[in-house]
Amino acid sequence: MIKFSKKDISKMGKTYRLNLINSCTGYKSANLIGTISTEGNNNLAVFSSITHIGSNPSILGFILRSSKRPRDTYINIKNTNEFSVNHIHFSQIDDAHNTSKKFPAKISEFDKTNLTEEYKKNWKVPFVKNSPVQIGCKYLNEYKIKENSTLLIVASIEEIFVKDEIIYDDGLIQLDKGGVTSINGLDTYTLPKYLKRIPYLKKI
Amino acid sequence: MIKFSKKDISKMGKTYRLNLINSCTGYKSANLIGTISTEGNNNLAVFSSITHIGSNPSILGFILRSSKRPRDTYINIKNTNEFSVNHIHFSQIDDAHNTSKKFPAKISEFDKTNLTEEYKKNWKVPFVKNSPVQIGCKYLNEYKIKENSTLLIVASIEEIFVKDEIIYDDGLIQLDKGGVTSINGLDTYTLPKYLKRIPYLKKI
Repeated sequence: MIKFSKKDISKMGKTYRLNLINSCTGYKSANLIGTISTEGNNNLAVFSSITHIGSNPSILGFILRSSKRPRDTYINIKNTNEFSVNHIHFSQIDDAHNTSKKFPAKISEFDKTNLTEEYKKNWKVPFVKNSPVQIGCKYLNEYKIKENSTLLIVASIEEIFVKDEIIYDDGLIQLDKGGVTSINGLDTYTLPKYLKRIPYLKKI
Repeated sequence: MIKFSKKDISKMGKTYRLNLINSCTGYKSANLIGTISTEGNNNLAVFSSITHIGSNPSILGFILRSSKRPRDTYINIKNTNEFSVNHIHFSQIDDAHNTSKKFPAKISEFDKTNLTEEYKKNWKVPFVKNSPVQIGCKYLNEYKIKENSTLLIVASIEEIFVKDEIIYDDGLIQLDKGGVTSINGLDTYTLPKYLKRIPYLKKI
């Protein structure tokens, strides 16, 4: 095995460190977050840090990097209180990744990619058409991670939309049946295949 | 598409809600966290919430559920300040999942499964032998998520051990070459396959 010490990591070039540290924590969820500005401009951005926080109440979180200029996603969520989370189908990976280009706030990523808006009752924010799982979320809180000034955004899961054929009788969304992708590192898209479901074992 | 409203979710049976909400956020990392108690008892527990928080400094986080009785993993980390993160190879999924059984604190999961301890220089905590990626971490901080009383544990990445043949020239760990798995929901193990690496695009 190759060993990287803390000293090795601190002396690495920036690109090597970004690739190594982003890939060393394992597979990540692949999502597009949809928001709208107070002026009515749509925004769509790829995220790989959406994390399950709890089931009752149903809440999720994601990490926003610190930067001098706040990102459109953050500004829009703070102003409108809502956002959509859309899983990335394998046919959407190029367009999804292209949302990471730095477009001006007035430019909608929907106009610069082949992704299509989908509007839903009760929601101002756009969802992504043909995304196999879509979640409507409302902002609850944010926690500043003081170790590197990132933000953990915490939100409630208000509505979930799932392709009919990928949900089991017991509530499990079998993501591989929906062609949902997963991200390795910063830029590598993967397609997981079902291996095995192992019953949850509470007692010895 | 099937729609679940907030009201639907609140009225669901517990098992259905656990499966739905745990699977709706997308694929999760599949890791075993290794710790040791002050009395010298090893502990190993499966986690699916390890998340990249930042590359410089190199830090990661994970969510610990709230419970009246603190979990062994938490007690050990607070007492010794360190833990190991070990990626789950596809040959290890049954044993990895079996660590979620509730063994008494004095019982080591290494003795109750076919997983084998590996000890490393500088570390008191056990690592998991044959895990394709292993990380030695030190506790930095914890943030209480007040919305559901879970804890976000934040830790520094001190040392990384990676199988030689799965690391690229630019630092990317190509996880599928190491047979690393990903978790869907609470109990479904998947094996991701490489689709495409898409260059990171900073500018338009």
